[in-house]
Amino acid sequence: MLNLENYIRDIPDFPKHGVVFKDITPLLANKEALVSCTTALLNLTENQKIDKVVGIESRGFFFATSLAQHLNAGFVPIRKPGKLPFETLKQPYTLEYGMDALEIHEDAISKGDKVLLHDDVLATGGTASAACKLIEKLGGEIVQCNFLIELEFLKGASKLRKYDVRSLLTY
Amino acid sequence: MLNLENYIRDIPDFPKHGVVFKDITPLLANKEALVSCTTALLNLTENQKIDKVVGIESRGFFFATSLAQHLNAGFVPIRKPGKLPFETLKQPYTLEYGMDALEIHEDAISKGDKVLLHDDVLATGGTASAACKLIEKLGGEIVQCNFLIELEFLKGASKLRKYDVRSLLTY
Repeated sequence: MLNLENYIRDIPDFPKHGVVFKDITPLLANKEALVSCTTALLNLTENQKIDKVVGIESRGFFFATSLAQHLNAGFVPIRKPGKLPFETLKQPYTLEYGMDALEIHEDAISKGDKVLLHDDVLATGGTASAACKLIEKLGGEIVQCNFLIELEFLKGASKLRKYDVRSLLTY
Repeated sequence: MLNLENYIRDIPDFPKHGVVFKDITPLLANKEALVSCTTALLNLTENQKIDKVVGIESRGFFFATSLAQHLNAGFVPIRKPGKLPFETLKQPYTLEYGMDALEIHEDAISKGDKVLLHDDVLATGGTASAACKLIEKLGGEIVQCNFLIELEFLKGASKLRKYDVRSLLTY
C-alpha cells in the first residue's frame, strides 16, 4: 500500500493568506496512487449496502463515480446553485463571511435510499452538513460521510455528530 | 447493453431560452446505466495506451477518473481560472458573447504523455479546443478527444479536426 500522504502537496496561502491548501492533484495524476486511494476509500465503507453515492461539487466528483461503480450504486451530484437543470431542493449554509448554498435534484434520491456522502476534504463541515440535510429532506438514509482528508483542527466532525464520519487522512 | 439515450433527459430553455440541455443525471443515478456508460466510453479508446486522462470541469470529472483507472492512467483536471492551487498555464477561449479561460497545472502532463481528453458534451468545441492547446503546450500527445454526447448541429468537431474525436451519443 502506498503512503498517500506523499502524493498530497501543501500550498501555502491558497485560496487566501494564512490557509494551507491540501492539493490532491499529484495523487490523482499518479496511476498507482489513484487506484490505491479508491481502494482505501472503499475499505472505509466496510461493504455496507449503498444505493447512492453523493459527491459534492467539484472535487467530490473525482472519486464519487468510481466509488459508486465499485459499490454497485448510482451517483448523485450536489452542486452550487443554478448548475443543476431539473427541479431542485436548495440548502443555504454559512461561510466564515456570508452565505452560500447547495442544490440537489428532487428526484435524485428515493425514500429509504442508503446513501454514502463523499467529498475530498472535511474542513469546517458547513458544506457536508448542508449536503446531509438535502439528502435527508429527500428521504435518504446517510450510511456514512466519507472524506479523503479531514482537517481535524477545524472540528468539522462536530457538525456531523449524527453520522458515521470516516476520513482516510487526517491533519 | 442498455440504451443510454433512455437515461438522458431534455431540459428546455436551460441554461437560457431556446437551448435544450441534455441532462445526464438520470444516467449517473442508475447503477446499471453508470457502469454501461463507463464501459462504452472505454470501448471508444480501443485499448490504446494512455498515460493521462484529462477531464474538463465540472461534468467532465464524472467519468474521467473512472476511465483513468480502467486505462491504468493518471487523472488530470482542467479547471476554471483560480481553482487550481499550484503553478498553472491559462488558455482563453471565446464564448458566444465574451471570453472565458481554462487552466491546467504546469506539472500535470509530462512531455510525450499520451493523453485522452474527456468531457461530457461536445457543443461548439470552444472548451475542448482550449483544453487541447493546454495539453499540447505541456508536451502531451492527444490520442483521442472522447465525449459522452456530441451536439452535431453545433459543429464542434470542426474545431478539433487535428484529433481523433469519438462520441458515444450524437444529437
